[in-house]
Amino acid sequence: MNKNYAVILSGCGAKDGSEIQEAVTALLAIAKTGNKYTIYAPNIDQKHVVNHNDDTEMQETRNVLVEAGRIARGEIYDLANINVSEFDALVIPGGFGAAKNLFDFAFKHTDFTVLPIFEKVVREFHSLGKPIGAMCVAPVVIASIFGDKSVEITLGADSPLSKEIEDKFGAKVTVAARDGVVIDTVNKIVTTPCYMYGDSSIVDIAKGAENMIASCNTLIG
Amino acid sequence: MNKNYAVILSGCGAKDGSEIQEAVTALLAIAKTGNKYTIYAPNIDQKHVVNHNDDTEMQETRNVLVEAGRIARGEIYDLANINVSEFDALVIPGGFGAAKNLFDFAFKHTDFTVLPIFEKVVREFHSLGKPIGAMCVAPVVIASIFGDKSVEITLGADSPLSKEIEDKFGAKVTVAARDGVVIDTVNKIVTTPCYMYGDSSIVDIAKGAENMIASCNTLIG
Repeated sequence: MNKNYAVILSGCGAKDGSEIQEAVTALLAIAKTGNKYTIYAPNIDQKHVVNHNDDTEMQETRNVLVEAGRIARGEIYDLANINVSEFDALVIPGGFGAAKNLFDFAFKHTDFTVLPIFEKVVREFHSLGKPIGAMCVAPVVIASIFGDKSVEITLGADSPLSKEIEDKFGAKVTVAARDGVVIDTVNKIVTTPCYMYGDSSIVDIAKGAENMIASCNTLIG
Repeated sequence: MNKNYAVILSGCGAKDGSEIQEAVTALLAIAKTGNKYTIYAPNIDQKHVVNHNDDTEMQETRNVLVEAGRIARGEIYDLANINVSEFDALVIPGGFGAAKNLFDFAFKHTDFTVLPIFEKVVREFHSLGKPIGAMCVAPVVIASIFGDKSVEITLGADSPLSKEIEDKFGAKVTVAARDGVVIDTVNKIVTTPCYMYGDSSIVDIAKGAENMIASCNTLIG
């Protein structure tokens, strides 16, 4: 298709950054359909650093842009410098890093706040009619940012969280299969559960990413 | 196939650990063909930590097993505890982390030494007739460990390095396409270039991983 995707990462690793498998399979799905991607991350410190093997907090400071650069092989740019007009669509992989560094849902539940530069960029893509794909927990922040538009998203299986997000942000939260997508054609928002199902396999993640990108491709004007 | 693969990682990030895209696409290829994987890494400090965005060395100490756990989502084990008899095949993704932490080619060129536990495990897989898949720069250490067997490997395009590896270790180094594999059926060694071609795309990497795993699958006795 030769369309240009922007991908926003939030670090490197599911527990304090971008979920790596979601990020990689999203990039792969973009490239497999003949499109290009440019990777961005905010130049801020991570909220914290988590040892992924024992879940303990490590007494270190790591930068979101620097760590996300590991997934990007160093080809990554400061989100503050994005020119949205250059892109056709936006993708936001999940992982707790999204829900810690881009918005702080993981710490404040539905009373979270959103990183201003991230919200600005998301709103700009939307206002220009460009599709937004969001994986795993990232749809939560989409529901919040577009609280006035009653967007339709998925968070995987039905859960108390789905009801909370519906009540707080006026979104419609729809069940989707492990590799399924929910497509809000009015708002051009495509969401897929990924590791919202804790027992998903890497094959589910890759299929979900492919289904998300296929839907975004069809929504690109 | 329901076969069991062991995958050895060397950290998280191409410049001081496992190349993330190679690692993820290898795991995906294993799972897509109906097989299982268990991920291992040595419990040692990384040789150093590199900022992937500006290539500077960071004054930090990171542990290979802890950082590789980011790719594995915490489901990773100390390589010292592997029971090779439980597995049908071994896969070693590339990245400079392989050539720094598993063997120190990146620092000592062909005069490198090999991490003893890594060499022990590789030899055990081989002696039990189990296939070994190696990506990117990892075939170099396979050529070294099996220097007495004249193994056939690929390092991608023809290069001075290919000649050096042939001269030093008696290996046959064969050219392969970006997504190609070289299969040493006698020694059950499958190698694929991945980012030995610096301009490979993530699609090339994924196809190379799939071709490698398809070949390993056929070699499993």
